[in-house]
Amino acid sequence: MLKQPASKYPAFQPIGLKDRTWPDAVITRAPIWLSTDLRDGNQALIEPMDVERKLRMFKLLVQIGFKEIEVGFPSASQTEFDFLRRLIDGRLIPDDVTIQVLTQAREPLIRRTFEALEGAPRAIVHLYNAVAPVMRRVVLGMDEDEIVELATSHARLFNELAAEQPATDWTFQYSPEMFSGTELAFSKRVVDAVTAVWQPTTERKCIVNLPSTVEHSTPNIFADMIEWMHRNLERRDAIVLSVHPHNDRGTGTAAGEFALMAGADRIEGCLFGNGERTGNLDIVNVALNLYTQGVSPGLDFSDIDEIRRTVEHCNQLPVHPRHPYVGDLVYTSFSGSHQDAIRKAFAARREGDFWNIPYLPVDPKDLGRSYEAVIRVNSQSGKGGIAYLLESEYGLALPRRLQIEFSQVVQAVMDAHGKELGAADLWDIFQREYGLDQVNTPLQPVMEDVTGQRVRVAAQVHIGGRPVAVDGQGNGPIDAFVNGLNAAHSHEVRVLDYQEHAMGSGAQARAVAYVEMRVDDRRTVYGVGIDANIVSASFKAILSGLHRVVRARAQDIETQAV
Amino acid sequence: MLKQPASKYPAFQPIGLKDRTWPDAVITRAPIWLSTDLRDGNQALIEPMDVERKLRMFKLLVQIGFKEIEVGFPSASQTEFDFLRRLIDGRLIPDDVTIQVLTQAREPLIRRTFEALEGAPRAIVHLYNAVAPVMRRVVLGMDEDEIVELATSHARLFNELAAEQPATDWTFQYSPEMFSGTELAFSKRVVDAVTAVWQPTTERKCIVNLPSTVEHSTPNIFADMIEWMHRNLERRDAIVLSVHPHNDRGTGTAAGEFALMAGADRIEGCLFGNGERTGNLDIVNVALNLYTQGVSPGLDFSDIDEIRRTVEHCNQLPVHPRHPYVGDLVYTSFSGSHQDAIRKAFAARREGDFWNIPYLPVDPKDLGRSYEAVIRVNSQSGKGGIAYLLESEYGLALPRRLQIEFSQVVQAVMDAHGKELGAADLWDIFQREYGLDQVNTPLQPVMEDVTGQRVRVAAQVHIGGRPVAVDGQGNGPIDAFVNGLNAAHSHEVRVLDYQEHAMGSGAQARAVAYVEMRVDDRRTVYGVGIDANIVSASFKAILSGLHRVVRARAQDIETQAV
Repeated sequence: MLKQPASKYPAFQPIGLKDRTWPDAVITRAPIWLSTDLRDGNQALIEPMDVERKLRMFKLLVQIGFKEIEVGFPSASQTEFDFLRRLIDGRLIPDDVTIQVLTQAREPLIRRTFEALEGAPRAIVHLYNAVAPVMRRVVLGMDEDEIVELATSHARLFNELAAEQPATDWTFQYSPEMFSGTELAFSKRVVDAVTAVWQPTTERKCIVNLPSTVEHSTPNIFADMIEWMHRNLERRDAIVLSVHPHNDRGTGTAAGEFALMAGADRIEGCLFGNGERTGNLDIVNVALNLYTQGVSPGLDFSDIDEIRRTVEHCNQLPVHPRHPYVGDLVYTSFSGSHQDAIRKAFAARREGDFWNIPYLPVDPKDLGRSYEAVIRVNSQSGKGGIAYLLESEYGLALPRRLQIEFSQVVQAVMDAHGKELGAADLWDIFQREYGLDQVNTPLQPVMEDVTGQRVRVAAQVHIGGRPVAVDGQGNGPIDAFVNGLNAAHSHEVRVLDYQEHAMGSGAQARAVAYVEMRVDDRRTVYGVGIDANIVSASFKAILSGLHRVVRARAQDIETQAV
Repeated sequence: MLKQPASKYPAFQPIGLKDRTWPDAVITRAPIWLSTDLRDGNQALIEPMDVERKLRMFKLLVQIGFKEIEVGFPSASQTEFDFLRRLIDGRLIPDDVTIQVLTQAREPLIRRTFEALEGAPRAIVHLYNAVAPVMRRVVLGMDEDEIVELATSHARLFNELAAEQPATDWTFQYSPEMFSGTELAFSKRVVDAVTAVWQPTTERKCIVNLPSTVEHSTPNIFADMIEWMHRNLERRDAIVLSVHPHNDRGTGTAAGEFALMAGADRIEGCLFGNGERTGNLDIVNVALNLYTQGVSPGLDFSDIDEIRRTVEHCNQLPVHPRHPYVGDLVYTSFSGSHQDAIRKAFAARREGDFWNIPYLPVDPKDLGRSYEAVIRVNSQSGKGGIAYLLESEYGLALPRRLQIEFSQVVQAVMDAHGKELGAADLWDIFQREYGLDQVNTPLQPVMEDVTGQRVRVAAQVHIGGRPVAVDGQGNGPIDAFVNGLNAAHSHEVRVLDYQEHAMGSGAQARAVAYVEMRVDDRRTVYGVGIDANIVSASFKAILSGLHRVVRARAQDIETQAV
């Protein structure tokens, strides 16, 4: 790292907009949202989504309430082309949803794109070309006039090809690529030239999308740039002004919000901020920021954990525990004084009051979450934590969500008995809570390969005291066991997360398995199993989770009987 | 989630500052940085740091170049008290570093805090009390006058107790807690009252720290609040104006930067944004944002991965792969057109040019990283990826950094041969690269428990064709094996990451182990081992990594000979 980076990195030039209005603006309604999870998000994955994952993501986006969804770059590969055809031919696009596809300003790609869209009832076709000085000079070797010609000639091709398919309701979108790194006057020149070709009207608008392809500056400068374009673009009333922020400087959310304050109507981004490098704008974050200011975002995040699980499955990337609104730890309070303030504020809250709970900017229940007060088992930070004691004394490395779940159990015991707890007390509570002494190893287990890919598992188990014969097939032993359980038993089990590790080493080593599972699509619980055999441990973990659900139900019934 | 959240959530009221100057300001020098990793960061961990981890974090912060470090809340627990004493009594605080400690405005806690600081050469003592309306009304049951009295009476106690320990160079700091949720006029009233007690001078300043305890609004409003305080506080020239942003709305970085533009001199935060809920301000992010604008931050992140590893060790929380400047994926380009632009810009770049590479806002080398072009093995996204093929065909779930490493190897083969690769080709390359056919299982392995906690491993292995007798002890088999290797062999091996999973299931199941290791503190490589025995697989993985280092060295020598 250079001590004097001024010799290597130039400062971004401020815009110095006179009479800017955005710092006084307040966002009072939701923008048009465009999800690019299936395009910009997907192309930034180590492993791009296969068709199954793409369909799952598309369905999720529709469920959340997106009305505009960028579904790919159909001229870039056969896979992308085929996925688009699958959506159109399978009639998978709801009537109130418009798909969007991207194409570079190259004739064969544009022709292929319109071909891919044949028969679509509605579509946004999204044209881009690079306009930034570094791209003109170094990559394309074109001067300004040539860039304008590049954009307008391909915009004209859009007019022609759309006219050939009149049955489709077309919307055109243009992005001056690397807008954030381009002279404003030149961006305006190119955009004006494109809209002159398209001749949008107030009834038939086109979309002009301004990307911060790379985030180069503090977000106030991006806001100035958007406000300048908003004021100076020709045919502004016939344009839906859109932005597409990235997050290289960690300020993508602010840049997006300021762009809306500066005059943008529409915003492009991804769920939880997936995307190239540091990601695209996080639509969930911006939408829920609006929500907590009393503005309905028009998107439904009322079961945010389920959305997260689907996104993690599709992207094969984790959501961070401190990610705004959704991370495992964001509704968790560790500090005694915070917990005290929260408790008092809940107690003082009356029906119909505005939400005003310290340390909780949103009611976790609105997102299907709950507030969690994580207690320390004794007054000393450091060596006193539950997870620390169970790990150091008993070799258990509890998954994070299980730590939080178990902390609530310990809290209840402490509230009831009021004493400090040591490692042995915690281990007792843990064994009891997860039924480690009550769940037995499945009897007469059989596991066999059915084909190279599938296994069959058969065994006798006990659930809630009842014997159940399990016999199922699956990709692996857990899958087969769960399928067998679901076929035999009244509960519907779905495994959400699975972790297993060795306890101890050498000949005495045993494995502990942790399984997070959803039961009857109502309760999400952990089960824990310990066994010398890693497969038996995982089966026991599943039975442990079921045991807990059955026990809780029995307690409910008992309580009602009293 | 409510469709009409306006009935539940009130909008934040804008400040509407007249003639605000911050939107035109440019940050031209670094602020004073205060790391609160050991205080605010630590108290937000599921498992707070033990003394070993705290010392490691403190040493790291000093190495990075922090001159002010908040080290704890010594009156809150014996552990915190003892850690502070360890720093002072062990003379672990460098001459140019000042420690800071936090205390609530309660007499016994303040007395205990000054007691804990006895003998410290310099210290910042940080006083806080809640001032926000919700805290006054619901939690404390105090009116405004009582809050002012609470603050000033305890500020007076600071004067008294400091006078009793004249050998220490004292600095006082005051935080009106929940400043972001408090009426500006009242915050000013409390702060003015406290500084009236302390009577700071331009030579002997006090610190006034304004926290966004919870981030409630878009960051322009926080900036307005800071600029208002900057303009209106009494004794402003005798005050170091500090801010302490949190990140509930995902805009903590922007809020921190704007606060500096609005007049703040100092900023509090944590490495990579650890902290309560969504975290504190991320100091690394703000510092490197300055760096890429040509401003030296005065902090050294030239080996950012090593810093990340230490932070992950201390916090037991991961850094996200898309985290600005440090995530695994932030210097990775997946798109062919991006890769092409980057390649051309590198080729056109001349000595002394400003950094201007598309898609790379910072030179990764400045942070000890490298640019990585991840290629797809064939033109179809989706089913074509390296990791996908190895997983679906051979059952290997490669860790993310290994995927990136191996992608470079595949790229080199493709560049040399220019053909599309299938799963079998990749598997060949993988086996060759990681020496799966060349690394043998250790011979005559012995593993025994030395005590309940330690094991001994002895075995014969081959490294670079040479036989080596390994004999070591450690917490577990890997630790013991590495210790034995380091004792016997010329290479110094440190294990950075270890993952292992089953390939297949049933009787034919084997385990594959991936070990990320640092060799001779110069190269970071992965090794891979496959074996029916999970312990043997991990040993083979370590030998695989060593094999790769030895081979690379031999190739270097060969190249030099030619």
